Amino acid sequence: MSISEDDAVLPPGLSAGDFSKALRAFTSAVGEDAVLTAEQSAEFRDPYSFPGWDSHWPSAVVQPSSVEEVQAVVAVARQFKIPLWTTSMGKNNAYGGPAPRVRGSVVVSMRRLNRVLQVNEDLAYAVVEPGVSFFDLCAELGRRGSSLWASIPDLGWGSVVGNTLDHGVGYLPGGNHADSMCGMEVVLASGEVLRTGMGAMAGNRAWHAHRRGFGPSVDSLFMQSNFGIVTKMGKWLTPRPEVYAPVEVRARHESDLEALIDTVRPLLLDGTVTNVPLLGALTGAASMRKPRAQWHDGPGPLPPEFYEAARAELGLGFWNLRLALYGPDAVVDVQLARVREAFERGVPGAEIVARKLDGADVNEQTLTTHPERVQAGIPGLLLLDSLQWWGGIGGHLDFSPVGPLQGHHARRLVNLIRPVVEQAGLDFWPGTIMTPRSFFMVSPLLYDTTNEAQVKAAYDVYRRLVRLIGEAGYGLYRGHIDFMDDIAAQYDWGDHAMLRLYGTLKRALDPDGILSPGKQGIWPAEPDPAQPG
Amino acid sequence: MSISEDDAVLPPGLSAGDFSKALRAFTSAVGEDAVLTAEQSAEFRDPYSFPGWDSHWPSAVVQPSSVEEVQAVVAVARQFKIPLWTTSMGKNNAYGGPAPRVRGSVVVSMRRLNRVLQVNEDLAYAVVEPGVSFFDLCAELGRRGSSLWASIPDLGWGSVVGNTLDHGVGYLPGGNHADSMCGMEVVLASGEVLRTGMGAMAGNRAWHAHRRGFGPSVDSLFMQSNFGIVTKMGKWLTPRPEVYAPVEVRARHESDLEALIDTVRPLLLDGTVTNVPLLGALTGAASMRKPRAQWHDGPGPLPPEFYEAARAELGLGFWNLRLALYGPDAVVDVQLARVREAFERGVPGAEIVARKLDGADVNEQTLTTHPERVQAGIPGLLLLDSLQWWGGIGGHLDFSPVGPLQGHHARRLVNLIRPVVEQAGLDFWPGTIMTPRSFFMVSPLLYDTTNEAQVKAAYDVYRRLVRLIGEAGYGLYRGHIDFMDDIAAQYDWGDHAMLRLYGTLKRALDPDGILSPGKQGIWPAEPDPAQPG
Repeated sequence: MSISEDDAVLPPGLSAGDFSKALRAFTSAVGEDAVLTAEQSAEFRDPYSFPGWDSHWPSAVVQPSSVEEVQAVVAVARQFKIPLWTTSMGKNNAYGGPAPRVRGSVVVSMRRLNRVLQVNEDLAYAVVEPGVSFFDLCAELGRRGSSLWASIPDLGWGSVVGNTLDHGVGYLPGGNHADSMCGMEVVLASGEVLRTGMGAMAGNRAWHAHRRGFGPSVDSLFMQSNFGIVTKMGKWLTPRPEVYAPVEVRARHESDLEALIDTVRPLLLDGTVTNVPLLGALTGAASMRKPRAQWHDGPGPLPPEFYEAARAELGLGFWNLRLALYGPDAVVDVQLARVREAFERGVPGAEIVARKLDGADVNEQTLTTHPERVQAGIPGLLLLDSLQWWGGIGGHLDFSPVGPLQGHHARRLVNLIRPVVEQAGLDFWPGTIMTPRSFFMVSPLLYDTTNEAQVKAAYDVYRRLVRLIGEAGYGLYRGHIDFMDDIAAQYDWGDHAMLRLYGTLKRALDPDGILSPGKQGIWPAEPDPAQPG
Repeated sequence: MSISEDDAVLPPGLSAGDFSKALRAFTSAVGEDAVLTAEQSAEFRDPYSFPGWDSHWPSAVVQPSSVEEVQAVVAVARQFKIPLWTTSMGKNNAYGGPAPRVRGSVVVSMRRLNRVLQVNEDLAYAVVEPGVSFFDLCAELGRRGSSLWASIPDLGWGSVVGNTLDHGVGYLPGGNHADSMCGMEVVLASGEVLRTGMGAMAGNRAWHAHRRGFGPSVDSLFMQSNFGIVTKMGKWLTPRPEVYAPVEVRARHESDLEALIDTVRPLLLDGTVTNVPLLGALTGAASMRKPRAQWHDGPGPLPPEFYEAARAELGLGFWNLRLALYGPDAVVDVQLARVREAFERGVPGAEIVARKLDGADVNEQTLTTHPERVQAGIPGLLLLDSLQWWGGIGGHLDFSPVGPLQGHHARRLVNLIRPVVEQAGLDFWPGTIMTPRSFFMVSPLLYDTTNEAQVKAAYDVYRRLVRLIGEAGYGLYRGHIDFMDDIAAQYDWGDHAMLRLYGTLKRALDPDGILSPGKQGIWPAEPDPAQPG
């Protein structure tokens, strides 16, 4: 396992010789089969990057199988001052996948910690390790004959823990996943293990049932951060409803955007809609059907004829809002009538399509479309079909600003983003995910990863947009590794008071700076006498 | 404002002369009328302590009126190494009121920061300063003709911010107040000001609409902690429902406890009940009617005759569960039928009393009882009537363990706690507050504050119970200042890993240890070479 000095990817500041020693130490910690060299690590590069770009390549991958092995890996990294980059399943592809922020980091892949440790049917929660995907969790619920449903995101291959730690969202009640986690276990940079919330008490009965302990809650410190490595997490589940009713609202005109958002908000605030609605765009649906060239042959923004043709062929609106209702039959009936009435009044001309199923009849056979499945906790990979859009080998960056859930804010963002994206020769189709008071306008910037100029165009647009929407008062909720500093820089209140606080916490919790340096713009640094602490 | 050396309450380690200088500096910071000396600070002692006990007396009180004044107060404290103890309204009486953990601390009362800064009717939130009480907020909503309701706790005089920061609970949807805050402003021990979540970006539009920013969320670090002084907070509100239906389930037998809890849990998990139910005890209701001596003349546990008499006179069960439904008339009808059916089946013999009101008709005239009012956001002080229980001047400690929301856990806690309380000559009547997966068994230990032996008995019982229930696997969610170290000591997983982490964070964020030392068992300390950081 010796490294040739020429083409090696090495941790910053480490010689090939020292790195060989470190690899031997990692191998003692986790076993020979659990260490991959840089050459063996292609799977742990950014799958949606241009293949020749090497700025986020790992120097090695270690794959611990237990908490103790995670502790041992951290100890080796401390000894050799090697930056680690933790990933769970590593499927966060629109944001870099498993690839590290810093070239030459050693990726700690948690895929081998893959147990569903507990399913509590009475209290409606599961306890999972980071290597448990949404597919795995749902399969386990099925195996146990559980009547619990898990909130899942659009793609089922990602980690339940990883998604939650990155502030990810799913589409059932409890779909704001960071809000429906309860109780974690964390390995700190010191090598110590911590249990949060009620788990901070040995033998406590409520670790995964009650979100806070005695004193400040630290769970959220380990989300979108580099302050620790999470090794277990409680995830709240939702009981199978008597009736499940997926609803789709198809609005014909681009100008219906504001009305759609202002109509759904009161339904979320008053509890009529308890799941996480998503407002999709026609172009996104078109991308799942066939490549762009088969819709419109030529560069430049998609013309009106494309939209007409896609509407006709797909039977959809320019905007398509999906939501779902869950509950006793009679309650769902009343709620469905309210939803219909609200959209008929609020978005004249919109088509409202709804379906009602007995909760016990929900399965892959009875539900055939992605919106129907994903709101009922049936995971899939259908959305990957959109990667065919430009031909070649598809990839995308997700540009994901947050705004208050009001139509005029969504309009403002669309008006800011669309021209910049289209001028770069790319297409814009936001998927706007909603909470009762805010939205995430997730905008995939698709490209052909084998077309370097197009990948570069997408990267350039992303960087420009971060600043543009920051100046307009909107921040990103998550971001691709290449832009984390750009995004963090927009969070500038009080002369970047939050970033300074992150620095203070980072120095306190990880003085050697070994855990995921650069994640979310948080870097290890020398103590600065001008800083608090 | 000079201090006589004899009977002065002084900050630890400070001479009377230096403290005089500090008081002059505090006076320059906030103005003469905003500084109270120890002698003028009786209102800021623990109102439910035996009057002669002086271990939590403040050395002075400073009352800043602005964020800048809070910063100036912190600067003075740093200069003189004086411990500050922050309180909002200071009405957290069952846990010490405004009194500091450390005798001689300077109380920072936030009562003068008392503005409702914003009410956003569309997005259903308010932004408040720490001196805004629940009475104030509700009055302001009324003045503005708002159609929003605020979740409130049993007593209306407390601070919205203070209650939330102490993990307090109210009884509307969103009643787990820490989960329905969004976006704060904090003065750090360094004197710097921080805005959290989206507020970390200057001019961001979603500060109080979206709970997370880019990077780890730190809001919960400033709850139940001594890491900063919160100066603003967003509180999510709930739209006035079409129909409001308070429900009470009166269960005759003590042995109905398990069935009540196991019946309400599925209704919470499936979203039938969206507010925060409370299971009260007959004795609590009796205490609001008349003093103990008029019910039962004599010491010792309340005899069966008392329970018979109280049931008859009050028309209540041994256990009385309150909850409420909110929504369109037809939805509430279905939900009410479900609730009835569930309790008729689950708790045979229980009396179920419900009432339905048009949401627009809800006011102090139409709602006459405390349970009806408090679940509709109408604040009051009725619960103070229970202080008459033992005669003299009533006070209480609240002993508040958390358990998973399962009947057998509630039974176990009742069986552990009741004999200890009754053997000490006190009475036990838990008010069990519920989330979908957990409960807080808030157990007020009432006494006559002028009866030193009785106050001491309550303190002794509290300290014993902390350990007893800790050994059984239950932790307290909040605690009286005198027992914070005892409670924190129970959170012992990983050789007290959480308390060590708190220490690391405390040293990083407040190296001079000036902010609320001892709060929740978190103390400033010398750097320990064995610790991370």
